[in-house]
Amino acid sequence: MPIVHFLPANVEVEIPAGACIHEAAIRAGLLDLELPCGGQGTCGQCLVEVREAEGPGRMVVACQTPVAGDIAVRIPDLRERELRIAGDSRALVSEHLLPASGELAPLCRLVRLTVPPASVEEHYSDWSRLVRALAIGEGLPVSAPLAVLRGLADVLRARDGKVTAILQETSGGIEVVEVQPDHTAGQLLGAAIDVGTTTVAVQLVDCETGRVLATRTSYNSQIRRGADVIIRIDYARTPERLNELRALVLGTINALIAQMARDAGCDTRLIRAAFVAGNTTMIHLLLGLPPRYIRESPYVPTVSAPPPLAAAACGIEIHPEGVVAFAPGVGSYVGGDITAGLLATELAVNRSDIFMFLDIGTNGEIVIGNAEWMVGCACSAGPAFEGAGIQCGMRAAQGAIEHVEIDALGHVQYRAIGGAKPAGICGSGLVCLLGEMLQRGIIDQAGRLEDSFAGRFVVEQAARTESGEDLVLTQADIENLVRTKAAIYAACARILENVGIEANAIARVYIAGGFGRYLQISEAVLIGMLPDLPRERFRYIGNSALTGAYIALLSREHRRKLAEIAARMTYIDLSSDPRYMDSYVQAMFLPHTDLNRFPSVARALALTRRS
Amino acid sequence: MPIVHFLPANVEVEIPAGACIHEAAIRAGLLDLELPCGGQGTCGQCLVEVREAEGPGRMVVACQTPVAGDIAVRIPDLRERELRIAGDSRALVSEHLLPASGELAPLCRLVRLTVPPASVEEHYSDWSRLVRALAIGEGLPVSAPLAVLRGLADVLRARDGKVTAILQETSGGIEVVEVQPDHTAGQLLGAAIDVGTTTVAVQLVDCETGRVLATRTSYNSQIRRGADVIIRIDYARTPERLNELRALVLGTINALIAQMARDAGCDTRLIRAAFVAGNTTMIHLLLGLPPRYIRESPYVPTVSAPPPLAAAACGIEIHPEGVVAFAPGVGSYVGGDITAGLLATELAVNRSDIFMFLDIGTNGEIVIGNAEWMVGCACSAGPAFEGAGIQCGMRAAQGAIEHVEIDALGHVQYRAIGGAKPAGICGSGLVCLLGEMLQRGIIDQAGRLEDSFAGRFVVEQAARTESGEDLVLTQADIENLVRTKAAIYAACARILENVGIEANAIARVYIAGGFGRYLQISEAVLIGMLPDLPRERFRYIGNSALTGAYIALLSREHRRKLAEIAARMTYIDLSSDPRYMDSYVQAMFLPHTDLNRFPSVARALALTRRS
Repeated sequence: MPIVHFLPANVEVEIPAGACIHEAAIRAGLLDLELPCGGQGTCGQCLVEVREAEGPGRMVVACQTPVAGDIAVRIPDLRERELRIAGDSRALVSEHLLPASGELAPLCRLVRLTVPPASVEEHYSDWSRLVRALAIGEGLPVSAPLAVLRGLADVLRARDGKVTAILQETSGGIEVVEVQPDHTAGQLLGAAIDVGTTTVAVQLVDCETGRVLATRTSYNSQIRRGADVIIRIDYARTPERLNELRALVLGTINALIAQMARDAGCDTRLIRAAFVAGNTTMIHLLLGLPPRYIRESPYVPTVSAPPPLAAAACGIEIHPEGVVAFAPGVGSYVGGDITAGLLATELAVNRSDIFMFLDIGTNGEIVIGNAEWMVGCACSAGPAFEGAGIQCGMRAAQGAIEHVEIDALGHVQYRAIGGAKPAGICGSGLVCLLGEMLQRGIIDQAGRLEDSFAGRFVVEQAARTESGEDLVLTQADIENLVRTKAAIYAACARILENVGIEANAIARVYIAGGFGRYLQISEAVLIGMLPDLPRERFRYIGNSALTGAYIALLSREHRRKLAEIAARMTYIDLSSDPRYMDSYVQAMFLPHTDLNRFPSVARALALTRRS
Repeated sequence: MPIVHFLPANVEVEIPAGACIHEAAIRAGLLDLELPCGGQGTCGQCLVEVREAEGPGRMVVACQTPVAGDIAVRIPDLRERELRIAGDSRALVSEHLLPASGELAPLCRLVRLTVPPASVEEHYSDWSRLVRALAIGEGLPVSAPLAVLRGLADVLRARDGKVTAILQETSGGIEVVEVQPDHTAGQLLGAAIDVGTTTVAVQLVDCETGRVLATRTSYNSQIRRGADVIIRIDYARTPERLNELRALVLGTINALIAQMARDAGCDTRLIRAAFVAGNTTMIHLLLGLPPRYIRESPYVPTVSAPPPLAAAACGIEIHPEGVVAFAPGVGSYVGGDITAGLLATELAVNRSDIFMFLDIGTNGEIVIGNAEWMVGCACSAGPAFEGAGIQCGMRAAQGAIEHVEIDALGHVQYRAIGGAKPAGICGSGLVCLLGEMLQRGIIDQAGRLEDSFAGRFVVEQAARTESGEDLVLTQADIENLVRTKAAIYAACARILENVGIEANAIARVYIAGGFGRYLQISEAVLIGMLPDLPRERFRYIGNSALTGAYIALLSREHRRKLAEIAARMTYIDLSSDPRYMDSYVQAMFLPHTDLNRFPSVARALALTRRS
């Protein structure tokens, strides 16, 4: 039987060949490996580093990786795992959607190559031989700054043509930004950045291997100037205030980048490229573009698909000459976060089945379509599911309650991220909690708390919380959550009616958003946020904007796909749709005024109430 | 009969309809209009500005432009005409080779357009609508710096979408570098720059109309560090000296640009693009690229086709963010000056006839081929024909003797540029002089001065020269000129033998070079510099590198053709050809040791000697 040697615990166990690493960890008494996804290999919480014999280590998901022979397994320490809370993009997305590591064409690349010497027969210039050896293909023009050309002759001759080149993608081609003699061991990093209205998430990526080195999230500091995009657009009316909002979000992004670089133990100047996904307003504020026309009819932004820019010009603190590229948006209310998010779905492999894609952040965006056509719309959901505007709400970080169960006696059981004392409730926890409260009759279908709770439901007593205060959900919180879910459901209903498709025709529903590590779909259907479809049609894909930014950072093919997606999508403006408001009002009940739309919920509620 | 009103002289004459403007000028007693090309419309010396009724003025060649109705004609003053000595590119090249002014796609463009407003149906972003309205086509990616995007929303709305945009071509696409509200009257200029080993020539071009506003030439200040590329390459061995040579040529170029801008009364910051043609060594020195490998086997430069660069990075003093593009070279000794020069030939209209192209500067470069294939070679001619290394030599400027006749009695008649006192002899004058001296028996076929001249032939007495000293051609000068012409002829002979083509199969011979305004072909054949072919097959195309840079500055189509020409050409290295030296020694006679190669010269010499 193969032997698995766990590090840093230094424990060895024997297990049958074919058993997975996670089983070995349990046998070894190592309980560090949480499996919030139930061992489906989707949450990335059980990532471990495997070393076989002499080769380099590789990261695998312990719950899905069988043991064939003797191996050493390093379990990342808790600190490292905490960073992965926003979701490791590589783990969150199906392997077949990711570019194979041999086929990466990242926004910035470190290439080690050997440039053949010239001969009397083949007397191409140093630059031509370098460009040929780079074999970039596709007829892309290749350029270089003068500094590179000036050193080139000597660099190519220093080590028999062995060189290490750094390439960056520009608006129309490739720029060779550095060439050093010899094959150096240097690392070249990229950043995937998701700029949300409420939350900003960044991921540090090794551009050579595609490996995620660190992940960080925090609230967007702009929140102090308004919870949603409309308030911020109004705030940014003067150049000074626009500048202030720009500085705030840059402060958030740059602090995260700096932390991330510290986590990975590297210099931010090694980061040569960033791929940014964000909604149209966030991108305007980040770039200092006046956003006012976004909210004035006919609602056009200055730019939906910003061209790539130099990092120094953007104010993003990576290498100042690094390149910052942006996911293209479709319009004022369907931005680059959505097109990037679609990269994280099977759309990228050209399925013809009809899918629905929901990105639930402060704005909810919904796309329906297939590889041939796509229709998108947006609704104002509010930041409740990102933990903002809820008394004990918080983003999905250490101590956030992400899962709740209430038994028939009203006892609450929960799971907090990191196994720590609870500090608040994140989006997935709120959905869960609301569903459980409805099922146990703690709230009624109108969302009213039973009188005995006196307007507040205690999830955990002060003695056992991080803050030393009761962790509660108030009547106002509940109303906020109901409005949020109603806005989302109404948009789903209207877009379906608009394209003339029955909910049942949808083969797959992708749910993205800042819920934390996972969202319990059945609870989301229970409260009437999502249409009542067989559970296996839903797939929670986490922070898909970040995942999409990660994929686009690494693959030119996917950057091209992004442009295609943006070009192919039609936008429907729900704010000018008189029937949207009706739809919204009908959805202000749990799950809905029309229970025929939620047959499985009707059955479940009837069953619980009977018991 | 139509009336022609001349300005600034304020003289009116009546002439028959259909007579040309030049005839009218003679009738009016205005003798300002020189016709060194004999009225063939090729020298550009008689350019005048014509105004009909209300329309804008247009520049025409007086010798070729018939008068149909009443017109006003402004004769540019002498100062202006002097600037045109290096040749007005527009006048020097056949009209059908030039891009039509409606089809210009210059390296930088000023575009006045109206961007339609967005509507609820067509809610494209401001940037998308601008890019659509620009209609750049060809799928070229369009980018913009942040500053342009930041102002865009307001600029587009200030004057109902009427805007003036400035575009620059980048390595892979187009950059919108400025957008101003309204249709402004501003001018956008470009510079065509020919960086020769001995002479630098620049031309200021209105990028909107293609009109040449000013032309300036001067010696390359690097001359003080060596007369030819080999000496300069050796000089540039250390970074300090390379930097010194770079500063010298930049000094020359920038002084010319500043003078040119003064001539045209405009700010150098209005110049947003420069197109540079130069031999490979000159481009290396200009960019500060170490040139040493150009002269070490296997003779490869750092770069043959430099990517476009920012003006500030190059050190060329136009708008600092302007773009500087380069004519692509073929190798170490066939540079961008040659590919640019080929643009000034009918090659550009895809002729299948075999042509020969000779660019006679300090290096002589020869290309033979047709639209399908091209073979190029180079020889070291020395700077004699550019007036350097010859006691009374000078470049083609005010006071340079450009044409000489010697009668049977030995009396010398000459024409100096600008009708001024003679200051020296330029290339075309030297060729003429040598031919006349040979024909009159003042020198023999070995180039020896008849003993009675005591080693110096006086072209003009001290009393009548600019300097107050005799203007002479010495025995050493003659030997220098013979070596130069021999190097050129030997290269012609070897390239013909190499490709296995008889001289007589050549349908057209283009002669380019720094000879001044024109070269008397018959005299060049007489001294055995050019092969003995019917005179009508030769065409003198002046400073074709400058003309090519001018065309490429204005036309994207021609920039593409340049890349094609560079890609299609094969280089033959004469320095490793053992038979080149034999060929050279045979050509050290006037015209040649083998008079069978020069039957027409043999006949002419026999005839003169008999008389």
